[in-house]
Amino acid sequence: MIYIVGIGPGDKRYLTLMAIEIVKNSDMVVGSKRALELFDIEEDKKCYLTKNLREELKEIINSTKNKNINIAILSTGDPCFSGLLKTILSLGVRKEDIEVISGISSIQIAAAKLKISWEDYEIITLHGKEENRKKLLNLIKNNQKVIFLPNNLKEDIEYLINNGVNPEKEMTVCENLTYENERIVRDSLKNLLKMDFSYLCVCVLEGDE
Amino acid sequence: MIYIVGIGPGDKRYLTLMAIEIVKNSDMVVGSKRALELFDIEEDKKCYLTKNLREELKEIINSTKNKNINIAILSTGDPCFSGLLKTILSLGVRKEDIEVISGISSIQIAAAKLKISWEDYEIITLHGKEENRKKLLNLIKNNQKVIFLPNNLKEDIEYLINNGVNPEKEMTVCENLTYENERIVRDSLKNLLKMDFSYLCVCVLEGDE
Ligand SMILES: C[S@@+](CC[C@H](N)C(=O)[O-])C[C@H]1O[C@@H](n2cnc3c(N)ncnc32)[C@H](O)[C@@H]1O
Ligand SMILES: C[S@@+](CC[C@H](N)C(=O)[O-])C[C@H]1O[C@@H](n2cnc3c(N)ncnc32)[C@H](O)[C@@H]1O
Repeated sequence: MIYIVGIGPGDKRYLTLMAIEIVKNSDMVVGSKRALELFDIEEDKKCYLTKNLREELKEIINSTKNKNINIAILSTGDPCFSGLLKTILSLGVRKEDIEVISGISSIQIAAAKLKISWEDYEIITLHGKEENRKKLLNLIKNNQKVIFLPNNLKEDIEYLINNGVNPEKEMTVCENLTYENERIVRDSLKNLLKMDFSYLCVCVLEGDE
Repeated sequence: MIYIVGIGPGDKRYLTLMAIEIVKNSDMVVGSKRALELFDIEEDKKCYLTKNLREELKEIINSTKNKNINIAILSTGDPCFSGLLKTILSLGVRKEDIEVISGISSIQIAAAKLKISWEDYEIITLHGKEENRKKLLNLIKNNQKVIFLPNNLKEDIEYLINNGVNPEKEMTVCENLTYENERIVRDSLKNLLKMDFSYLCVCVLEGDE
């Protein structure tokens, strides 16, 4: 069985007991260095993903097929939100052969920090999905509340401004959530454009009142 | 400080280490019987919520104000999704006085069980929000993929059918997720109407291809 295990936003304390249990009982644990470090795993069970995620996963999955072992694949946040579930299904793995363990998504942490309820927001990911930019633009023009994962924050903001969104519009950027260098900034799009952010960001826009 | 602590869908294994830690360090832990049972808490720290959630919470919050103690209020799923955060803010508690600990939402478990990615779905709650029924209807008529929390499943399905949704349209009902009596049924709206479900349900509709 292949377990796709959500590991939450980064801080170990957001692991679920289920994630810990599944990892403990797996024969092989696959993930980034940062993900693997969250668990207490024997070195010979670890399998590091480095750069070419898709290719590496493909190889691992193919080489362990028919081997009747349990593999845990670690996925940041929730595997079912812009996460590894989709990647793995796209490799042709059958749904019957996987089990998914939910994890806390970065979207949820952003909502918790800002004390907002995400059922009131449109949620959208631009991560590797440039076609969603247009959808985001329309939502903002329609004055909806939106939480989104940027693809490239600077370029995404430029796109919005170049397509008619008011540069004075305020947005909250939640960066490196649950990490030591967590930072939450609320400012105008114009000013945000002048700042530097890491690629770990969740953005929140309120509709104008 | 008031901690609003997400406890996940019901199975203890979906607790986060953070939820366990906060509860352990709180002076008072407030929740339903079912919620309190998930934790190992001294009896004299427990405070049971019974029926009149809003009133009881109000009383607890008022009576502990200025007392400089840590209170953990347990909330099913994620407090930021159709959850207790909103209730507590509506009682006039200030955002500065609370901290929210995200939990795994029933929406996420439904996605994990069906192996779907929730960024591809519109997510909507009818729970105590009858005005959202119309929004749901429009989404379905526009052939969107939707995950929703019903308010009253039978009445919600009747509403959809009475307002022009094809009774043969298929829907998946995910009932009592992570509990022993978990059940996942996919059938036509017409047939689902003949079955009985508990109030713990998440519904998933695929757009027609
Ligand atoms: C491939 S997506 C994975 C999302 C993940 N499955 C989830 O549920 O959070 C990666 C993006 O998630 C967001 N993200 C993940 N962890 C984050 C964190 N700790 N702080 C802020 N954003 C984060 C960033 O936008 C990042 O570029
Ligand atoms: C007041 S809402 C709370 C939602 C919760 N905050 C969450 O994130 O799941 C209660 C509704 O959540 C859904 N729900 C909660 N737990 C569930 C479970 N274990 N299985 C199915 N549905 C559940 C049901 O629709 C229920 O009526």
